Amino acid sequence: MRRSRYFVLLFNLLLAALPLSAKKDYTQFVNPIIGSGGHGHVFVGANVPFSAVQLGPMNIFKGWDWCSGYHYSDSVIIGFSHNHLSGTGCDDLGDISLMPYSGEMRTKRGDDHHLEGAASSKFSHDNEVVSPSYYAVKLDNGVNVELTTTERVGVHRYNYTKAETPRVLIDLFNGIGNKTYEAYIRKIDDTTVEGYRFVNGWAPQHKVFFYAKFNQPIQSLDVFHLNTPAGTDELQGRDVKAVATFKDGMKELLVKVAISSVSCTNAKLNLEKEMTGWNFDDVHQVAKQKWNDVLSRIEIEGTPRQKTIFYTAMYHAFIAPNLYCDVNGDFRGIDDKVYRNNKFKNYTTLSLWDTYRTLHPLFTIIARKEVPDMMNSMLSIYDQNGKLPIWPLYSGETNCMPGYSSVPVIADAYLKGIGGFDANKALDYMISTATNPKQNGVKDFMHYGYIPADAIKEATSIQLEYAADDMGIALMAKKMGRMDVYHTFLKRALSYQTIFDSKINKIHPKMKDGSWYEPYDPFLANERDGVGDFCEGNGWQYTFMVPQDPDGLIKAHGGDAAFVKNLDELFVAEGDLGEGAPPDVSGMVGQYAHGNEPNHHTPYLYVYAGHPYKTAEKVRMLQNKFYTNEPDGYCGNEDCGQMSAWHIMSALGFYQVNPSNGIFVFGSPLFKKATIHLPGGKTFVITAPNNNDKNVYIKSAQLNGRNLKTSYITYNDVMKGGVLNFQMSNRPNKSFGKAKQHRPVSAK
Amino acid sequence: MRRSRYFVLLFNLLLAALPLSAKKDYTQFVNPIIGSGGHGHVFVGANVPFSAVQLGPMNIFKGWDWCSGYHYSDSVIIGFSHNHLSGTGCDDLGDISLMPYSGEMRTKRGDDHHLEGAASSKFSHDNEVVSPSYYAVKLDNGVNVELTTTERVGVHRYNYTKAETPRVLIDLFNGIGNKTYEAYIRKIDDTTVEGYRFVNGWAPQHKVFFYAKFNQPIQSLDVFHLNTPAGTDELQGRDVKAVATFKDGMKELLVKVAISSVSCTNAKLNLEKEMTGWNFDDVHQVAKQKWNDVLSRIEIEGTPRQKTIFYTAMYHAFIAPNLYCDVNGDFRGIDDKVYRNNKFKNYTTLSLWDTYRTLHPLFTIIARKEVPDMMNSMLSIYDQNGKLPIWPLYSGETNCMPGYSSVPVIADAYLKGIGGFDANKALDYMISTATNPKQNGVKDFMHYGYIPADAIKEATSIQLEYAADDMGIALMAKKMGRMDVYHTFLKRALSYQTIFDSKINKIHPKMKDGSWYEPYDPFLANERDGVGDFCEGNGWQYTFMVPQDPDGLIKAHGGDAAFVKNLDELFVAEGDLGEGAPPDVSGMVGQYAHGNEPNHHTPYLYVYAGHPYKTAEKVRMLQNKFYTNEPDGYCGNEDCGQMSAWHIMSALGFYQVNPSNGIFVFGSPLFKKATIHLPGGKTFVITAPNNNDKNVYIKSAQLNGRNLKTSYITYNDVMKGGVLNFQMSNRPNKSFGKAKQHRPVSAK
Repeated sequence: MRRSRYFVLLFNLLLAALPLSAKKDYTQFVNPIIGSGGHGHVFVGANVPFSAVQLGPMNIFKGWDWCSGYHYSDSVIIGFSHNHLSGTGCDDLGDISLMPYSGEMRTKRGDDHHLEGAASSKFSHDNEVVSPSYYAVKLDNGVNVELTTTERVGVHRYNYTKAETPRVLIDLFNGIGNKTYEAYIRKIDDTTVEGYRFVNGWAPQHKVFFYAKFNQPIQSLDVFHLNTPAGTDELQGRDVKAVATFKDGMKELLVKVAISSVSCTNAKLNLEKEMTGWNFDDVHQVAKQKWNDVLSRIEIEGTPRQKTIFYTAMYHAFIAPNLYCDVNGDFRGIDDKVYRNNKFKNYTTLSLWDTYRTLHPLFTIIARKEVPDMMNSMLSIYDQNGKLPIWPLYSGETNCMPGYSSVPVIADAYLKGIGGFDANKALDYMISTATNPKQNGVKDFMHYGYIPADAIKEATSIQLEYAADDMGIALMAKKMGRMDVYHTFLKRALSYQTIFDSKINKIHPKMKDGSWYEPYDPFLANERDGVGDFCEGNGWQYTFMVPQDPDGLIKAHGGDAAFVKNLDELFVAEGDLGEGAPPDVSGMVGQYAHGNEPNHHTPYLYVYAGHPYKTAEKVRMLQNKFYTNEPDGYCGNEDCGQMSAWHIMSALGFYQVNPSNGIFVFGSPLFKKATIHLPGGKTFVITAPNNNDKNVYIKSAQLNGRNLKTSYITYNDVMKGGVLNFQMSNRPNKSFGKAKQHRPVSAK
Repeated sequence: MRRSRYFVLLFNLLLAALPLSAKKDYTQFVNPIIGSGGHGHVFVGANVPFSAVQLGPMNIFKGWDWCSGYHYSDSVIIGFSHNHLSGTGCDDLGDISLMPYSGEMRTKRGDDHHLEGAASSKFSHDNEVVSPSYYAVKLDNGVNVELTTTERVGVHRYNYTKAETPRVLIDLFNGIGNKTYEAYIRKIDDTTVEGYRFVNGWAPQHKVFFYAKFNQPIQSLDVFHLNTPAGTDELQGRDVKAVATFKDGMKELLVKVAISSVSCTNAKLNLEKEMTGWNFDDVHQVAKQKWNDVLSRIEIEGTPRQKTIFYTAMYHAFIAPNLYCDVNGDFRGIDDKVYRNNKFKNYTTLSLWDTYRTLHPLFTIIARKEVPDMMNSMLSIYDQNGKLPIWPLYSGETNCMPGYSSVPVIADAYLKGIGGFDANKALDYMISTATNPKQNGVKDFMHYGYIPADAIKEATSIQLEYAADDMGIALMAKKMGRMDVYHTFLKRALSYQTIFDSKINKIHPKMKDGSWYEPYDPFLANERDGVGDFCEGNGWQYTFMVPQDPDGLIKAHGGDAAFVKNLDELFVAEGDLGEGAPPDVSGMVGQYAHGNEPNHHTPYLYVYAGHPYKTAEKVRMLQNKFYTNEPDGYCGNEDCGQMSAWHIMSALGFYQVNPSNGIFVFGSPLFKKATIHLPGGKTFVITAPNNNDKNVYIKSAQLNGRNLKTSYITYNDVMKGGVLNFQMSNRPNKSFGKAKQHRPVSAK
């Protein structure tokens, strides 16, 4: 929790009002402001883990850095809206914005009246309190705002300090970079308002219905088309705003707003189920406890700074996916149809191209009980949309980023034996998605055996993603005894070899006629004419985008020495990314880009070449360099938990390179001790007694007291519970993990 | 009313149940089936004059001839929907369809379930009763349906004759050739359902909200995405249907459905105001009385066949414009914004390119009290949309057809002194519309003085329409003393002269460079490459499209003889319209096309050349040939009353050629006596004692006993009340109306 002058007052009030829990409070270590500056794009506001509601302040949308609706550099709030993306590079949501203010209903600006002019307010970060379950701000307009939430209900407490008529603007027009195509508001009675906002945004379409209860009677609800008065009490149209006016002299106002993708009736149901009374502080405490439940799944020993960075990462890892169903299970599918469902908790906001790499493997350890619902949510999207999700958001498939990255996530869950979903159906859906001729490049992939650089844009990146995904299909099919499928998809998984150019030791875009794309500059990360280009990256970076088969990649290089040399060079090579390269390619160390996802596994590839000490060096350097306790504490988009998951896994000392095989290769643990609390009361404890800033190398390791020769452990090792002890050193132990038989291998 | 076997039973029931009104029943003469076959495209069902609701049966939409939702050739009904266009060549509306049936909720067709299969039913015209205020049909599925309406409420009475579970399909997906983009249904309580249908159709967008009350409890409301079950009680989406199931054994069900463009709340308000109880027959009687109130505005003496054709025309003349506001005055504007309005009754469905010619001049006589609201509705559209209406439908401007045809309508109302609207504002809006650079061709018109054939499609038709409209601006400005405006627009009104080619005595499309478009075939009515083409017509027809200045057109011809010769030839010339000519160009006599509007005034042009007897011949011939008591009794689209208005005016014996000058030129009266009931209890009586099939020529005329030398009378002559007597003859009186001083002249 980030302290401020304003905070001191509130914190004391809270201390006085509430009994201190005997349990440890991990939320105190979370600083949600990390990543709200720079290009982290994280959500700032109140929520609970994986919740439907993310209730937080919204600035005027000014572009890329406002993807979450809020950027640390801003100083004006236009409302507090009920859902936000966290860490993405795309803007959407920001639905159902409430803004308290007092005085004239509309202020005059020049010749015109502006509701926004009246309702927006400047603020200072000094007057903000920011924590996972609670957000407060003292607005310059004289209203003190506090926010907290349940899963589906946002709770607002406003204190009006000015002696002017108290009002709340309900803005159904402004969202985060998106466009309302229909909206509706209706006053049901003196304390109840319902309505909806239908949106075309990054998600082609989504719908948010709301049901709001105030604890004070509304004197009048004036409705507006933008800033033009349109009567009272009810309005339907594209551009709907309303102002609820309250009795002069009213000091405190509470409003609880439930949302639903299905209907106002369901939103009402959500409200009735999740918040009956008016005790804001109780809701806050329950929300805080929910955060503690997830944050405490890993206990660490570390410095205050380390704890802040680590638990903030844990917090960011548990924001998305978002709950996307009502208390009765209903939700609105990708096809805009309503599904009546009481079989599983439906989730959305699956930033899979990012999160398949580390966040989902992490979930199999620390959110194992939520995994089956996530799997069922993805399988359900196939039922709705005829293919597994790419990047689903509410009732829209954004189809954003290359790959069908749900595939390795499902395979990983199956291969780890998590269960709780229909594996046969899942494999059928994975095959169908991977052979869907409408899926970008799939026809070419199946025809050529690779995706020609002159066939589609970003062809080579797309092929590399498909190949990584296809290994998941192959491994799952093999385990299920469907050997024909195994062989087909193993071939596709190894197809990176068709585009590896051993003359230059680089992945090299290949043309339809089989020739290499020339002239090829592996430094260029810009789009150029869409031939030979990569997706948010360059040839250097994508050369290592083979998490599914590092041994094969090493072989293709001609062996360990050439591979290690090439990988060493990645971290020092200097060159021009080219004009117009995407801002995502950030967090640069040589050509390694920690700010974007395709490289995240790359430092761990040394382990496969028998050089784990080089991984340790790189990982520790990246942790120090790119995770700080500052607003710009992430070196690129946080990406729905992926950037944080990298920190968490790496801090524990191991990392899953192949997204679908459950092999955790060693890096460099960050703490002297970390305890993972597993289902069934088991723990997996990682100790590194002599760990410090200098002792970054693993000298030796013991699993449950037994000396480990391997430079990796498995998922099962972790989930059985036990103790992993690392002896650290300030000098590399070059023999540890060097022998072929002690290295991890791609599970083919 | 069209009698059938089924009708006999119902009619006897009605006779038994209701005291016969002492007043004469004109609805007995109306046969709404006229125009429901062929290409008349009229609405069939129950309504009241100018009502918001047109409640009638809907077939499966099969194309152009189903523009009103119903075509006489069809034998399957899929539902009874609450609004319909009448007589247009474009399809839309058909919103909120209810279909009673019994038995299984969904029938199995092949491998799939089809709600439509269960709910659609065959029927026979023998089992239909069709009248203005009441429609009944005995469906082959065993349900007897009766319909009647108030202004904003459709009332259904269903009798279930089969011993199977009684149900009602509420279909918010199917309309008339349009596409739902959002819909909603909700069961409020056991007898109440509300919802909406938002549509992209011919009108780019419109919205219909409904509120429905049943007189029997709904046992369950099952909701569907098309035919896929989606739970009960409530559903929002693109493709919403619902089935209300009632108690087994229920025989009679009544449902009343109110509609609104604003909200369900307003629909409820409409219901509460317009129909409190459940007396279907009372509502029917009130509706019938409303029809009698307007039908009786003209009393005629004629044969039963003549009465049927005439009163059916009167009926069709009073269907549109449609009331488009709620009982509190609220409506949704062209800009999709809600307008709170209690100053005037708002109307929509203004088929102005058709109706400016005859229907609106007729309204100034027989619907004078409704005219100010129509004018205010049009001026309001300028306020909403920045230009006067072209062809507005609900909350959409279709921009259909050339011209800004609201302009002559407003000018006519002003010049006739009708008042009730702001004339200064009106003139400003007319000028603004006529100079709006976004209005198709206006920039070219102002630049070249004509609209070049190589500038835009249908250029010449568009110019001729603008010129006719501009005379309205000129005449109105002159009367208001704004002489600069008068001169500017008079010049534009006379601009037809720039495209009259005296070498061939034809309107001749002209190119940007001032040359005539060649090769020019004045018979061609097809689009070709969009250069030199006309809108729904050919060069022959458009040569006479100068209603604003017939004397000038005659002069351009070189005088009476050449003009009469040319006009004679129009009615006999034979030639090919060209491949792909629009079906609207119908009702052909030579090249004269009575089935479409641009020629409607043409037979009356002889009067301006001193040959009224030739007008008489042509008009009488057209009346006999193109108005019959058959399903295909109109020779083309009825066009929202225009085709009927031509019949009515012509049957009275006079016709307004210039849409904006109130001069009624003589033709050939159809009846021995016709009495127009005017405001204030006055009457204008037209007598023609010796009129018959042979005596089609006016031998002489007396106005209020005084011999008339002129071949015309004025609007004021009519509205003062009085008697116009025609002496008819079987031989032309070639001297009547021949002298220059007795002819009508264009009022410049």
